[in-house]
Amino acid sequence: MTSTLAYAALSQGSTVEPFKIERRELRDDDIAMDVLYCGVCHSDLHQIRNDWHNSVYPVVPGHEIVGRVTAVGAGVTKHQVGDTVAVGCLVDSCRVCEPCEEGLEQFCEKYPTPTYNGQDRHDGSMTFGGYSGQLVTSERFVLRVPEGLDPERAAPLLCAGITTWSPLRHWKVGPGTKVAVIGLGGLGHMGVKLAVGLGAEVTVITTSPGKSDDARTLGAIDVLISKDEDAMKAAGSRFDFILDTIPVPHDIAPYLSLAKRDGSVVIVGVIDMVPTFHSGVLLMGRRALSASMIGGIPETQELLDFCAEHNILPDCETISMAEINHAYERMDRSDVKYRFVIDMSTLGKD
Amino acid sequence: MTSTLAYAALSQGSTVEPFKIERRELRDDDIAMDVLYCGVCHSDLHQIRNDWHNSVYPVVPGHEIVGRVTAVGAGVTKHQVGDTVAVGCLVDSCRVCEPCEEGLEQFCEKYPTPTYNGQDRHDGSMTFGGYSGQLVTSERFVLRVPEGLDPERAAPLLCAGITTWSPLRHWKVGPGTKVAVIGLGGLGHMGVKLAVGLGAEVTVITTSPGKSDDARTLGAIDVLISKDEDAMKAAGSRFDFILDTIPVPHDIAPYLSLAKRDGSVVIVGVIDMVPTFHSGVLLMGRRALSASMIGGIPETQELLDFCAEHNILPDCETISMAEINHAYERMDRSDVKYRFVIDMSTLGKD
Repeated sequence: MTSTLAYAALSQGSTVEPFKIERRELRDDDIAMDVLYCGVCHSDLHQIRNDWHNSVYPVVPGHEIVGRVTAVGAGVTKHQVGDTVAVGCLVDSCRVCEPCEEGLEQFCEKYPTPTYNGQDRHDGSMTFGGYSGQLVTSERFVLRVPEGLDPERAAPLLCAGITTWSPLRHWKVGPGTKVAVIGLGGLGHMGVKLAVGLGAEVTVITTSPGKSDDARTLGAIDVLISKDEDAMKAAGSRFDFILDTIPVPHDIAPYLSLAKRDGSVVIVGVIDMVPTFHSGVLLMGRRALSASMIGGIPETQELLDFCAEHNILPDCETISMAEINHAYERMDRSDVKYRFVIDMSTLGKD
Repeated sequence: MTSTLAYAALSQGSTVEPFKIERRELRDDDIAMDVLYCGVCHSDLHQIRNDWHNSVYPVVPGHEIVGRVTAVGAGVTKHQVGDTVAVGCLVDSCRVCEPCEEGLEQFCEKYPTPTYNGQDRHDGSMTFGGYSGQLVTSERFVLRVPEGLDPERAAPLLCAGITTWSPLRHWKVGPGTKVAVIGLGGLGHMGVKLAVGLGAEVTVITTSPGKSDDARTLGAIDVLISKDEDAMKAAGSRFDFILDTIPVPHDIAPYLSLAKRDGSVVIVGVIDMVPTFHSGVLLMGRRALSASMIGGIPETQELLDFCAEHNILPDCETISMAEINHAYERMDRSDVKYRFVIDMSTLGKD
């Protein structure tokens, strides 16, 4: 066991503070890494607040992790000491079910092990995330950060990136696809960049007219203000694919109506209850409503490679570890463009 | 103009009675036919009762029509006098939009013309359906009834058949597909027969344990009683495709939960409001909820050819025209296995 400094929520509350944790001895397939950067996801805040009623304290958040390999287990073949690597939302799964075999570990039939606030499948210990000096993870769940991809800004690709990339790929977004991205936060801004990178024509749908310039800067060719009923009506049914990043319950019907025949509205993540809506909006164009969560390990690697090749990176604001609780406050009022990244070299230096 | 006997609802009410209507002179692309058989669809009852608030009286229902060609317009090439032909729910569309070009006239951007209670695109007259001695229809919307397909039992293929065939084909149901059909009425029983014909493994989901034997007779390999919570839970998530033929609003979540990863629940027709449900049932398996209505002309022809080749026919009870109002009463209490067909040679003979 190795002792390492981390930031943890020690009980139900909204702040994290310095705390010593233990990292396990390397198993044969394990990789040890120093954490270089860790993105700050809204889930981190939900978990430390116990919003999902499943938090086991201490909670060490962080699942957008970029690190440097410091040691490898006896059986490791994928990575070497010194490699720049990454870890996302998952650190294990059953590895043998159909989804795992297909590299869709997020759908593991025995449920995947989350990077933090999860339980290790071998020794039953709780998993601790990336707000810590070191991480030990099975190589199967460790990604390669390609040469040329800025490790600092790469961090949010591990959750915000893959969560939007996976549905864009699954629903075959490509050159000429007419895509709408609803919401322009951490996920939405990645959805825009990635869809543009794939060659799609992207429209941003937002409640805030003030976000129009930002949307266009990110690559959108059009902006639709969802509160403008005339504009929504005039937009017709023109999108092949609509990525819905609104993180709270909301009426789906106006967005379904914007989809073309055989188009899809895909909610990313959980929005609790889908409010009642008229079945006619599905029927009139054989439209589909679906939802998508994170992504599998092979498609996460594909994403990192794609971003390196196309020079696509999240827009980030880098903070020190000690600024994290202030960053949460700002995130809570959407005051960030578009993702905080913690420079983990600042850990223990406040 | 040709005068012909029909059965019509003359004002808002629930009975139809003999009534003389006019059929137009043949346009160049028109086909005139004697109606041989006409299926009785629940929509017929909705329309004569004005349940959808759009009925224009007199209403002559009937959109599951098999007839024999008696005359053809100067430009007709597809059919000849004497041919056995069929007409379904649509008798016209704009013919030039993308869906029409693709043979998906049900999605015509200018809205297709329904076989009855619709308005002719050329002279603005109301359309009258198959409860009549004769019909005049553009050849584009007239199907060929293949040699060997019983014209009497073929009639319900034109609505109940195509409404289930179209989604089965669109969602690529084939050998080995695990299909569930919810509800065992006119549509459901066709869904079972057609899915079985396509090589799928079909389970019927019903509220009525009494329908188990019937379901198996139709070709289902399993029956799931939806009111049996333990059985529903034990069924797991095992279906690739779930065809939902329940014609009224109902909770979708229990059915979505039965779908495999990337599986779909497809509602056929309109069920008014979809009740609220938790987004997690979409998310957990990237499942999709969609809806489907009738089908296009080419896929209706494909269905008729498929049924002829595979000897698939609806289970019907043949009635005389004069029995129609009694048939409605029985249909209203689901007392029919599974579709009434009117023998139109009985018209005017009560």
